[in-house]
Formats: sequence, structure tokens, C-alpha cells
Amino acid sequence: MSGRENKELKDLSLLGSQETAYSFDYTPEVLETFDNKHPNRDYFVKFNCPEFTTLCPKTNQPDFGTVYISYIPDQKMVESKSLKLYLFSFRNHGDFHEDSMNIIMNDLIQLMDPRYIEVWGKFTPRGGISIDPYCNYGKTNTKYEQMAEHRMLNHDMYPEKVDNR
Amino acid sequence: MSGRENKELKDLSLLGSQETAYSFDYTPEVLETFDNKHPNRDYFVKFNCPEFTTLCPKTNQPDFGTVYISYIPDQKMVESKSLKLYLFSFRNHGDFHEDSMNIIMNDLIQLMDPRYIEVWGKFTPRGGISIDPYCNYGKTNTKYEQMAEHRMLNHDMYPEKVDNR
Amino acid sequence: MSGRENKELKDLSLLGSQETAYSFDYTPEVLETFDNKHPNRDYFVKFNCPEFTTLCPKTNQPDFGTVYISYIPDQKMVESKSLKLYLFSFRNHGDFHEDSMNIIMNDLIQLMDPRYIEVWGKFTPRGGISIDPYCNYGKTNTKYEQMAEHRMLNHDMYPEKVDNR
Amino acid sequence: MSGRENKELKDLSLLGSQETAYSFDYTPEVLETFDNKHPNRDYFVKFNCPEFTTLCPKTNQPDFGTVYISYIPDQKMVESKSLKLYLFSFRNHGDFHEDSMNIIMNDLIQLMDPRYIEVWGKFTPRGGISIDPYCNYGKTNTKYEQMAEHRMLNHDMYPEKVDNR
Amino acid sequence: MSGRENKELKDLSLLGSQETAYSFDYTPEVLETFDNKHPNRDYFVKFNCPEFTTLCPKTNQPDFGTVYISYIPDQKMVESKSLKLYLFSFRNHGDFHEDSMNIIMNDLIQLMDPRYIEVWGKFTPRGGISIDPYCNYGKTNTKYEQMAEHRMLNHDMYPEKVDNR
Amino acid sequence: MSGRENKELKDLSLLGSQETAYSFDYTPEVLETFDNKHPNRDYFVKFNCPEFTTLCPKTNQPDFGTVYISYIPDQKMVESKSLKLYLFSFRNHGDFHEDSMNIIMNDLIQLMDPRYIEVWGKFTPRGGISIDPYCNYGKTNTKYEQMAEHRMLNHDMYPEKVDNR
Amino acid sequence: MSGRENKELKDLSLLGSQETAYSFDYTPEVLETFDNKHPNRDYFVKFNCPEFTTLCPKTNQPDFGTVYISYIPDQKMVESKSLKLYLFSFRNHGDFHEDSMNIIMNDLIQLMDPRYIEVWGKFTPRGGISIDPYCNYGKTNTKYEQMAEHRMLNHDMYPEKVDNR
Amino acid sequence: MSGRENKELKDLSLLGSQETAYSFDYTPEVLETFDNKHPNRDYFVKFNCPEFTTLCPKTNQPDFGTVYISYIPDQKMVESKSLKLYLFSFRNHGDFHEDSMNIIMNDLIQLMDPRYIEVWGKFTPRGGISIDPYCNYGKTNTKYEQMAEHRMLNHDMYPEKVDNR
Amino acid sequence: MSGRENKELKDLSLLGSQETAYSFDYTPEVLETFDNKHPNRDYFVKFNCPEFTTLCPKTNQPDFGTVYISYIPDQKMVESKSLKLYLFSFRNHGDFHEDSMNIIMNDLIQLMDPRYIEVWGKFTPRGGISIDPYCNYGKTNTKYEQMAEHRMLNHDMYPEKVDNR
Amino acid sequence: MSGRENKELKDLSLLGSQETAYSFDYTPEVLETFDNKHPNRDYFVKFNCPEFTTLCPKTNQPDFGTVYISYIPDQKMVESKSLKLYLFSFRNHGDFHEDSMNIIMNDLIQLMDPRYIEVWGKFTPRGGISIDPYCNYGKTNTKYEQMAEHRMLNHDMYPEKVDNR
Ligand SMILES: [Ca+2]
Ligand SMILES: [Ca+2]
Ligand SMILES: [Ca+2]
Ligand SMILES: [Ca+2]
Ligand SMILES: [Ca+2]
Ligand SMILES: [Ca+2]
Ligand SMILES: [Ca+2]
Ligand SMILES: [Ca+2]
Ligand SMILES: [Ca+2]
Ligand SMILES: [Ca+2]
Ligand SMILES: [Ca+2]
Ligand SMILES: [Ca+2]
Ligand SMILES: [Ca+2]
Ligand SMILES: [Ca+2]
Ligand SMILES: [Ca+2]
Ligand SMILES: [Ca+2]
Repeated sequence: MSGRENKELKDLSLLGSQETAYSFDYTPEVLETFDNKHPNRDYFVKFNCPEFTTLCPKTNQPDFGTVYISYIPDQKMVESKSLKLYLFSFRNHGDFHEDSMNIIMNDLIQLMDPRYIEVWGKFTPRGGISIDPYCNYGKTNTKYEQMAEHRMLNHDMYPEKVDNR
Repeated sequence: MSGRENKELKDLSLLGSQETAYSFDYTPEVLETFDNKHPNRDYFVKFNCPEFTTLCPKTNQPDFGTVYISYIPDQKMVESKSLKLYLFSFRNHGDFHEDSMNIIMNDLIQLMDPRYIEVWGKFTPRGGISIDPYCNYGKTNTKYEQMAEHRMLNHDMYPEKVDNR
Repeated sequence: MSGRENKELKDLSLLGSQETAYSFDYTPEVLETFDNKHPNRDYFVKFNCPEFTTLCPKTNQPDFGTVYISYIPDQKMVESKSLKLYLFSFRNHGDFHEDSMNIIMNDLIQLMDPRYIEVWGKFTPRGGISIDPYCNYGKTNTKYEQMAEHRMLNHDMYPEKVDNR
Repeated sequence: MSGRENKELKDLSLLGSQETAYSFDYTPEVLETFDNKHPNRDYFVKFNCPEFTTLCPKTNQPDFGTVYISYIPDQKMVESKSLKLYLFSFRNHGDFHEDSMNIIMNDLIQLMDPRYIEVWGKFTPRGGISIDPYCNYGKTNTKYEQMAEHRMLNHDMYPEKVDNR
Repeated sequence: MSGRENKELKDLSLLGSQETAYSFDYTPEVLETFDNKHPNRDYFVKFNCPEFTTLCPKTNQPDFGTVYISYIPDQKMVESKSLKLYLFSFRNHGDFHEDSMNIIMNDLIQLMDPRYIEVWGKFTPRGGISIDPYCNYGKTNTKYEQMAEHRMLNHDMYPEKVDNR
Repeated sequence: MSGRENKELKDLSLLGSQETAYSFDYTPEVLETFDNKHPNRDYFVKFNCPEFTTLCPKTNQPDFGTVYISYIPDQKMVESKSLKLYLFSFRNHGDFHEDSMNIIMNDLIQLMDPRYIEVWGKFTPRGGISIDPYCNYGKTNTKYEQMAEHRMLNHDMYPEKVDNR
Repeated sequence: MSGRENKELKDLSLLGSQETAYSFDYTPEVLETFDNKHPNRDYFVKFNCPEFTTLCPKTNQPDFGTVYISYIPDQKMVESKSLKLYLFSFRNHGDFHEDSMNIIMNDLIQLMDPRYIEVWGKFTPRGGISIDPYCNYGKTNTKYEQMAEHRMLNHDMYPEKVDNR
Repeated sequence: MSGRENKELKDLSLLGSQETAYSFDYTPEVLETFDNKHPNRDYFVKFNCPEFTTLCPKTNQPDFGTVYISYIPDQKMVESKSLKLYLFSFRNHGDFHEDSMNIIMNDLIQLMDPRYIEVWGKFTPRGGISIDPYCNYGKTNTKYEQMAEHRMLNHDMYPEKVDNR
Repeated sequence: MSGRENKELKDLSLLGSQETAYSFDYTPEVLETFDNKHPNRDYFVKFNCPEFTTLCPKTNQPDFGTVYISYIPDQKMVESKSLKLYLFSFRNHGDFHEDSMNIIMNDLIQLMDPRYIEVWGKFTPRGGISIDPYCNYGKTNTKYEQMAEHRMLNHDMYPEKVDNR
Repeated sequence: MSGRENKELKDLSLLGSQETAYSFDYTPEVLETFDNKHPNRDYFVKFNCPEFTTLCPKTNQPDFGTVYISYIPDQKMVESKSLKLYLFSFRNHGDFHEDSMNIIMNDLIQLMDPRYIEVWGKFTPRGGISIDPYCNYGKTNTKYEQMAEHRMLNHDMYPEKVDNR
């Protein structure tokens, strides 16, 4: 075992790069992948992203949330710095929280073609109410499709305490 | 992907509106909806509402609670500012906690015709005892009816610690 | 929808009453019920009771615990002030914790004939060890009997951290 | 030592009373006192009041907060049930949070003439920002006046973490 | 150094005793002391007592609280099992929380003649409000009298969060 | 219902006894039982034991852990003071944590012949790593055998955060 | 006492306004004030602002933090919705955290001429290290100048636990 | 029962050894085992390892995480001090987090041939995002293979709150 | 700067030593010191010791506590492994908690002759009450003597919440 | 106000740089500074550094801790990325915790010549005991020298709870 070699990393243009340009408009093309070296088994990778911000599509007011992304890779895996830049690109973009979580999942499905993926957003309140959308997906006609249904069925039965402080 | 366009938002009379009138009497007609843009998949939307208050039907004393509402949309989704106004309308209304949670769920079923919905209230104590009602619903004769039964069966098996402080 | 009317509340002798007499001897007859207005659906009602105290049957020493009571009502529901008085009546009564939790559940079954009920006590330590009994019940020959077995099977697989401080 | 006798409690019209009428308009005259039996020493009494709600004076929108009241009694002490009714009377009243905390303190000074008093409100956010006003008072030309200045000088140097969830 | 010898423990009638009788009426005479072996220095001893219960003097309803007792011993120290029995003796006794904390402190001053002592009670809410009384004492005409004043001046400037759950 | 009567308690030699001798060598024979008065139903009894200590079999160094014991009684139940003494008897005994949890469970099975039992130890770290063994058992050829397998299958899927502080 | 009247609120152009334009460039002129109705006493107002974001001046990368602002008003008080808009205006602005906290304080001093003010930022980590700047100010040649020095002297002696998760 | 005897421990070269050499290059051969004395039953052993550090394969920057390892032993068990040394050997080794968790699991499978094993890493953030990989394994063609699939299916449905502080 | 050289460490007989013998009888002579390399300044060293256990002098029952030791070194500093062995030596020793904290401090004063030292024990409850003794010391006729008095004066004004769970 | 201009940032060679070389040997020369733009006032800057690791000077075993660094700048301020590299350089360096905290502070004093600085390390346990050293410094013959003494005098009077889990 010798870790990732340079040739395995050569397609990663962003990791360790200095002159990164940050787009604050929706830019799904910034996403990059690397190869899954353990495709023989299912395993989960989760990203915790507490620095997500977007704009309200009607009032243009900034909104803030934490996004949790979990997936089982197939052949491709998303590189985390490119994911960071992708999430940055929602900064000055306006959409409902329910929509943006679905869009993030759609883009990651198109990028990686994962076996399974789920995206959960938890936002700060407006007018005393906060919104937490959750969506998931399993590859059609595989056991991962049933997995998605199973996890939807059992989703969030123990709501965290929220008191707006 | 371009976010929600204005025409999609044109039926939302309350979001971003200045002259909102607040009713503190039970007013289910204040609820508004917008279209679900992702009806091809099941996904959850949760509202955390820690600022719920109502009156005791016998003593008229104010009660306070947190209401958690989770649902899987079908074609319609409830707009969050209208939900806020709807919850405000319980402010000077008297009912048992067990009843008000059922009523909120009934009204949201009538409004959205969701695939699945659940409502959980957690109230502050009176006389050293607090009450937490939970109800749910799945569309009749669909898999969501089984979903409701499954989630009732497994509800709250890990009670949060409550010490009245 | 207009909340509970006075005639629906007329059998509640204790709620809002001034001259309540408190018995500190075991008094199950103090329990009162009101009608379930939503018998068409299953829903849970939970009582959090952190102010429970009783006596050791052998040493007469006071013991303290929190009692969590959850049930799915059938036609009758227990009124919370009468529940408070009932729990007060264990104050100068001596029994093992394992017994008192079973007795509370027996009395509530006899009172309400609920579809499902569970009672969980969590006590403070004596000699460095604390005891947490849990019992449940589902109506015989109904799906609630299986529900009780299912919830027993999956009970408390994530013990809360207890450090006696 | 025999506890408070009935004659000491005879001026308390609200404690244990059944037919309490709740006013939701500002009603400082509902406040009642009883005698301090330990005026030979300074001691603190604190009330924790997490169920405080009022209205925004401009938008009429409900606001929610926790109010902490601490005082050193002189001859009179505020009875806690009357304090509850007094705080209820802000329910449908409109004012800035900065004003309501000052008004509560003014009314309690007039009622009890305490040696020292402080009032701290902690409100839920609007637009992502929450407001926490704090005021205090010590009797003029006594050491309690210096006490008030000392406690203002050292107020809240360790802000609690607030993340709006 | 050899630990406490038997002769030093011979006046302790309760510690390790089997036939302890528990009084639930106010019984200050149950308190016992042992000798301070380190009177050359000031040091604090604190008792954390989360199992304190008493009755409301007007309604007879049980109340529950946690009592924190801290003192600097002079020649005598209170034995902890006797303190337990003393606190038990408030179980069926009626008094205001503000009074009971002052009484406990008075009794411990008379028992031990400590250099300094303070007593803090934190009770569960009634009607949404909880009460936390705090009193202290330093020996007259000693530096401990200034100590008491100093600690009163700086008391509880960071109120713990209380949300009645 | 009248609580446990004296005759039911007569075989408990340790509870309330003064001259208890503490053995710090492995002493399973100290364990005592009393009768289960509710054998008609399954219910759980859990013991939280945060004061468990033993020795490393190779280095003789003391180790510390919390032991959680949960069981469904059949005809016999372990008395908690005798359990305390039994756990004390590991104090100067040397064994691996993985072994001691299995031994405790073996001894309790032999004592009570329970329907189901599980034992979970959580130890403090050595060299930056802590060990948490978990074992369980269900009566052979009963549904409790499947219960044990089911709970093993679903054990501890949400590891508590451990940061060694 | 009648709450804030309309004439007192007439200079507040933003509160309750619908067509708010959000600037994401540094815009101190958006700040608005209202009159202090309690100038006879010192009191604190604190704003908790967990939704603060800005850009790194060198890399243009977004940064996130919570800003705590506390002040003692003199004649003018900052209106909270205008404060929200002001903080929004750092969204696409680049500066070091140490500078932005000083700038926010400078702008609020110029706006309100407060007796005392302090600003504390707590940012999320970059490269495993997070930065928390704190500045304060008291009116020159008043006791508030000493207050500022006293609070600087005693600042943050109990660092919160930070583990980057 | 007499604890582990010396002969059972004789193959453990590291436990209690003084001259341990620490390798900071990947060294799986340092791992040692001892015999499982309870192979008749399934039980879990979990290691909590909050002191794990490695290097980024592209930038060489240190990364930090907590690793949770859980397994059901067959005939062999990993000795915890050798596990510590093995984890040390990642200190100056470069690899992606997704790879290192898979490698640790592979090495422990080769060492112990366990019935079941899972490895979960939780790392600190880089650029505002943290990564948590999770993999598991059950012996092929045994029920443990289904166990692995079941636990993957239900993995981490309640993400812990992560706020990067 | 080159770290501690071997010659500086040569008097430490225990650190890194394999054949450590553990005494469970009071053994103050096991304590070892090394030289303070920064005697030009005052600085604090704190030891957190959550694995402290001793015996009750009257009943011989084991007691458990956490001991916090903080000191400002003069010329000598206590080596932490020897401190561990010293604390082990209370394992089978009987004394009151108030005495053992004073004895630990006395022994460390004799060993190191520190400028300042304090020892705080926090024990688990017996009979529902836990005891937390605190003592401190500053070198006679130095400013550290005043330091000890100052810290005693301000000791523990914010008692941690203790609920015996 | 326009943020930091490029010319102000030109001496920062590391921030935003790609080819950073990481030294894991003690390298104080990597530290860089930028100018303080607010030297007219005292203000605090705190760095939270939870990813600190070093080696034991005698056993070479890795140690882990969190380092909190707080200072009041004079003319120079330490750039955070260079601080990160500096702390990395302790990775393969051996020293006692008490020494490394003093050394970090010495190096930062030499680098920045700050008005005031303090460094607090909190390490994970070895053998059940953890060590937390704290040192500070104020410029000689200034008020900051008294500040250092004042903060040492009042250091850490409320030890955080440490239970090694
Ligand atoms: Ca919260
Ligand atoms: Ca909070
Ligand atoms: Ca609580
Ligand atoms: Ca605890
Ligand atoms: Ca929060
Ligand atoms: Ca609370
Ligand atoms: Ca709670
Ligand atoms: Ca932990
Ligand atoms: Ca921890
Ligand atoms: Ca934190
Ligand atoms: Ca954290
Ligand atoms: Ca966190
Ligand atoms: Ca506690
Ligand atoms: Ca606990
Ligand atoms: Ca801790
Ligand atoms: Ca801990």
C-alpha cells in the first residue's frame, strides 16, 4: 500500500492550486472527479458543509444552511475542493431551499453516477420557522433503488431540538 | 437551472409582502401553496416551529410548544410565510394540545394533499408534566399509508431527557 | 373547528379547580378521562414526568425518578392534571422501581383501555447504580400486541450516558 | 420554624385561586406582594421566565423571548403567580424589546422598592439577528447603587453561543 | 497519614447505620457533626443535593428543586448522611422556596458555626416560571463577612439557560 | 396494590444491612435475587453502573469504565445492592475488558436464568484508544434467541463522540 | 405605558418595508437609528449575528463567522433591520477578520455615539485554525473609557472548547 | 474464573513493554493478536481512536480525524497497543481519507479474519468541508455478509450536527 | 530550542518504564520531580484526574471522584506518571473526601514547594448527595498567599448542574 | 473603507500560495507578520488550534492537544497561515507539554513584540491524567505587565469537566 500516486491525482486541477477563481454564480461545471479504488465494496462518503449560503428568489435576502451529502460511490468520486467551489457558486443565486437541495443532488448524480446518494439541508429560521429539505436517490433497477426508499421511509424520526437560539 | 422565476412565484401573496395582517383567531384560509418542481421523486420537507402558543380551553391560560411538521409533497407545497401566519392564528385560540396537533395536520392535508405528513408538538410543563402529541398520515391505498403505520410503530423510542429546567 | 366546548369538558373535575386535595397514599381512583375526538387515526400522546418520588419498601428511604408515559388512545384519554395527582399518590408509598412502573401501566390500561401504552422510569442512583425499568402493552389479538413486541425487541439500544453527576 | 402561616398568606388573592382572569393587555396592577421574613440579610431571588411573548410595535408580529429577573428584596417580595399574570399581559401588547425590559423593571421597582434588581431578556431572531437587552437598578444613595454599576460593568463577558437553530 | 481512625468517627451515629428512621417532618435535630482536621486553612466543602422536595404552604402541592450548599468550616463539619436526613425532613413540610433556603442556612450556621456558608436552590417551574433563591453568610466582624458581601455582589451574572424542558 | 411486603423481601440479606463486608476479589456468590411479580409480560430492567474498575491482567494497572446491564426477567430478578457488591469484587481483579463483560453476563445468566440480557462496557482510554465491548444472550430455542441476534445486528450504529476529554 | 407610538417610529424606513434592496458591497449609510427612551440609566443591548460572511482579501474565498455586538446606548440606538442590511453589505467585500470587526465598531460609534460598545467575531477555521477578534470602546474621558479597559483586561478567560467539528 | 493467565499473554510483545519503537511510516506488520476466549457467541468490540493523523497525498498537509473501529471476533482479536502503533504509522503517510479507512479495514481483516468489521473516520474540515468515510465487511457466504449489507443500508441516518467550531 | 535532553530526564525513573509496581496503599514517596526550565515566569500547570477512587473510612465502601490539581511551579515540577502512581495509592485507603483533598495538597507542597497550588475533588453521590471539597495554598509571606485568599474568595460561584444521572 | 489593499499584503508569502513546503521539524523562522491597522486601540485576537501534535521527549510517543493563543497586538500581527506552518513544525519534535507552551509564547513575543499574549494547551490523557499548561506575558514596565499578573491570578477558576471520553 503506498497511497495515491501522482498519476492518480493528475486530473485534479483544483486541489493544492493557488490561483483558484471563485464563481458566485451557479457553476456545476466546476465539479471534478477521481477514481474509486475500492469499487468492489459499498462504502459511504459523507460531506459536512456548514458554510452554505444562497439568496431568496423573491426577496433576494441571504439565507444560510448546513448541507449534509452522503453517497456510495460507483466508479467516480467527487473531489472535495471542487465540491467546495460548486457550493460557493450558490452564493449569489436565488432559489427555494427545497429546490436547491434537489438541484445539488441532480448535479452530483450526473457527475458521478453514484450507486446511492442523499442530500439534507438544515437552514436558519425566517419568521421563527426553519426549513430542512431531504432528498435521496438509488440507481434505477438496482438494490440501491430499494435502499433509497427504505431510507426515505425511516427518515428523521428523531427531530433535533430547535429553539432558534 | 435558473432558480424559481417570477411567474412561478406570482401566486405567493404573502412572501416579501409588507402590509401583512396578523390574525390571532383560527384562520386556516391564510395558507398558500406553490408547485412542486420535483414530483418525480419522494423527498421530505420539515418545518421547525419553536414559537407556537395557544390557550388552555378550560382555564384560558397560555401554553407554549415547539411544533415539528414533516411531509412528502405531491403536487403542492405549503409556502412557509403563510404557514407562519396560520400558526399565529392559534395564538388566542383555546384547545387541548392533543387536538391542535390533529387539526394542524388535517388542515395541511386538505391544503396540499401530500403523499405523507406528520406533526409533533412538544409543550412546556403544567404542574410538573409536559405533553408531546404526535400524529401522522399517508395517502389511503398507497404505500404511504403503510409508511405512516411503520413510522407510528417506531415512533420516539428514545425519549429526550426532560427535567423541566 | 372551534376547540373543545364546555360540555366536552364538564366531566373534568380537577382541571382549573382550586380546592384540589392531594393524597400521598396510592390513589388510582383519582384518575379522570376525556373523549378522544380523533379515534379514526392512531396517534401518540407522551407525558414527561420528571417529578416522581416514592419510598424504598425495605428502608423507607425516598427515591426519585423521571417517568415517561406514551400511549395510543382508543376512545378515552387520561386528563393530565388527574395524572399528576395520581403520580403524587406514590409520594409516601413503598415499592421497588420495577414494580411501580408495572403498576402505573396496569392502572392506565384499566382506566383508558388504550390501543398501546409504554412506561419508562429512570431513577437516581443508590450505591452508585441507577435502575431504569421499561414495560409496554398492546391490546390482545390486535396489531398493537405485535407493536408492543416490536418495541420491546428494539428497546433502548443506545443507552444515554450516565455518570452519576 | 413552622412555615408560612395562613395569616401571612391572606393577602395573596391569586395563588391557588381557580377563577383567575387572564388579561392580555398591559396590566401592571395585577402584581401582588408578600412580606420578606428575612430582611436582616441580603439574598437573591431569581425568576426564570421562558414563556414571554409580545408583539412588534410596527408590524404587529409576535415575538418570543426568555426573561430572567433577579432581585434582592427589601420589605416586600413579588408573588410568583401574580408575576406570571403580569407577564401574560404583554401578550397582545406592542413594544420594542429594549423598551419592554425597562418597563418590567420599572414596574417591579414601583411595586416592591427592592434593594437591587436586574432584568435580562433573550429573544428569538428576526432576519437572522436576535436581541438581548439587560437593565439593572440599585437603590439611590445606598451601596446597591454601586452594586448595579459593578454588575453593569461586568455584564455578559462570555456570550452564549447562538446559531439560530 | 492514616485516614480517620475509629475514635474520630465514634460520634457519628448515622453513617453506616442500618435502622435509620426517616422523618418527613421538619427535624433539624437530626444533624450531626465531626471535627475539622485542617482548621489551619480555609477550604470549601460543597454538597450537591438534586433530590430536594417540599410542599407549597398554600396549596399543599409538592415542589422539587436542587439545593447547592457550600461552606468554609471552622471547628465543626456537618456529616453528609445526617444532612441527607435533615433534607428529607422537608418532604411533607410546607413553605415558600425563599423561606426554606434561608431556614436551611440558619440551621447549618447554628450547627457548625462555619466561617462562611451559602445556599442556592433551583426549583422546577409552576405556571411557566421557576424560582431560584440564593442566600449567604460570613461570620460577623471577620473577613468572612466581607466575603459574603463580595459573593452576593457578584452572584449569578451568567444565568443558565432555562427552557422548561 | 400494596407494594412489596416484608415476607417478599425476607431473603434479601444485603439491602438495608449495616455490616456489609466488601470483597475486592472476584465473588460471584454474593449475588442475590428476588421474585418477579410480573412474569406475565416482558419488560426491561436496566442498571447504569458508572463506577466500575478493574486491573490490567498484564501490567496490573487500574482501568475504569461504565457498565450498562439490561435484561428481561423470567422468574428471578437480581437485587441491586448485591449487584453493587458483585461489581466491587472486580476491583482488584485482572482481566481484559473483553473478558470481564462476558464473565459478568455469564454470571447473571447463571443467577437469574433471564429471558434476555445484554452487557455493554465503555472504558477510559489507554494510549489514546478506548475499548467498548458489548455482548448479549437470549434463551436458547425461544424468540429471545432471535432477539439477541437482532440486537447484535443493529448494535451501536451511531457511535457517541469520543475525544478523550 | 403604551408602547412605541407611530410618530416615534416614523424615521424607520426599513422595518416592515417590503421593497428592501440588499447591497452586498460595503454600505455603512444604510444604518438607521431611533431614540433611546431610557437615557436616565445605563443598560446593555446585545445583537447575536450568526449569519455573517465576507471574503478573504487575498484569495477572495468566502469566510463565515458569528458576530456579537453589545453596547450601552446614549441618545441613539441602532435599528435591528438596518443592522442586518449593514452586515449583509460585507457579503462580497474582502478584508481580514481583525479589520472587519474594528470597522463594524467604528461605524456603529459614528452612527450612535454610544456610551460603551464591544464587537466580538468568531470565525470558522481555515487550515485547522479559527480566528476570534474582539475590540471595544468607551467614550473618552468618561467612566466608560475605564469600563472598556476593565473589560479588555478580563476578556475571554474561559475559552470555549473548539474542536473544528 | 481467574482472568487471563500469563501463558495466554505470552505472545503479546508490546503490552507493558518499555522500549517500544514508534514507526511513522505505514507498518501493518506491527499488529498483534490474542485468542478469543468466547468464540461460542457473537459480541462486539469497539475501539474509539480520536488521535488519528495522516498527510494529504497531494499537498502533504497534515489531516486529523477520529476513527471508530467495531468488529465481531472469530478466533483472533487485535491487541489494543499494537493497534495504537499501527495507527501511529499513518502519521507521515499520504493518502485520501476515503482510501485510508478502506486500508485499515483491509489490514484488520487480513490480521484477524473477523466475522464482521466496520471502520468509520470523521475528519476535521478543509475549506469549510469535512469528510466522513465509512466502510464495512462481513465474512463471505455467512450471515455476516447480510449483516454488513444491512448496516450499510441503515448507516448514519441521523447526521451529527457539524458547525466547524 | 531543542526539547528536553536525556540528561534532563535521567532522574525520572518511572516515565517509559516497564516494570512499574503499583501500590494500592498510601505511598507519597512514589512522587518524582523534574526541573522547571521557565522559573522566570509564573505559569499554571493543571492535571485532570477523572480516575480517582478511595474507600469510605467507616463502611469501607469504594468512592469515586475526579480530582483537578493546578499549580504554579517554583523550581520543581511533579512528573505526571509518578502523580498517577501516587493517586493509585489511595485505591484501597480509607478517608473522608474532605481529608484526602487536603492530604494530596500537603504532599505536593512538600514535594515541589510550589508558588501556588489548588486541589478540587468532585465525587459521585451517596444517598443522593455528592461532596466537592476544594483547598488551596500560596507560599507564606509572598504575593501567592494573597492569591490563594483571592481565589478562595471567588471560588465556584457558578455551580455546575448536578442531577445524579 | 476599502479592505486590505494588495500592497499591504505583499509581504505575505504563504497566504494563498500553492507550493507551500511543510516542515515537521521545529521551524520558528516560518512565522510572518502583517501591519496592525488599528494600533490606536487595544484589541484581542484569539487563535483556536485543535490540531496540535508533538512527541514525548522520553518515549517518542505522539501527543495531541488543543492550543489557544490570545494576544493584544502592538505594531505587528502574526499571519494565520504562517502560524499554522509553525505549529506543524512541532509534529515530529519531542518536548514536555509544559515546555512547548512556553516556547510557542517565547517565539511569538520575539516575532510580534505584542502588548499582551497568553498560550493555553489542553492535551489528551496518558495513563488517565491529562495536562493543561497555561502561560502569559505583558510588556515589561507597562500596564500589560499588570494585566498578565491579573489574568494569572484569576486563571481557570471553573475547570471544564474532563472524563476522558
Ligand atoms: Ca437550539
Ligand atoms: Ca444556542
Ligand atoms: Ca432540561
Ligand atoms: Ca451526568
Ligand atoms: Ca443552537
Ligand atoms: Ca433547559
Ligand atoms: Ca431538556
Ligand atoms: Ca465524549
Ligand atoms: Ca468528550
Ligand atoms: Ca465547539
Ligand atoms: Ca465542536
Ligand atoms: Ca460543532
Ligand atoms: Ca448532570
Ligand atoms: Ca447524564
Ligand atoms: Ca470533557
Ligand atoms: Ca467528556
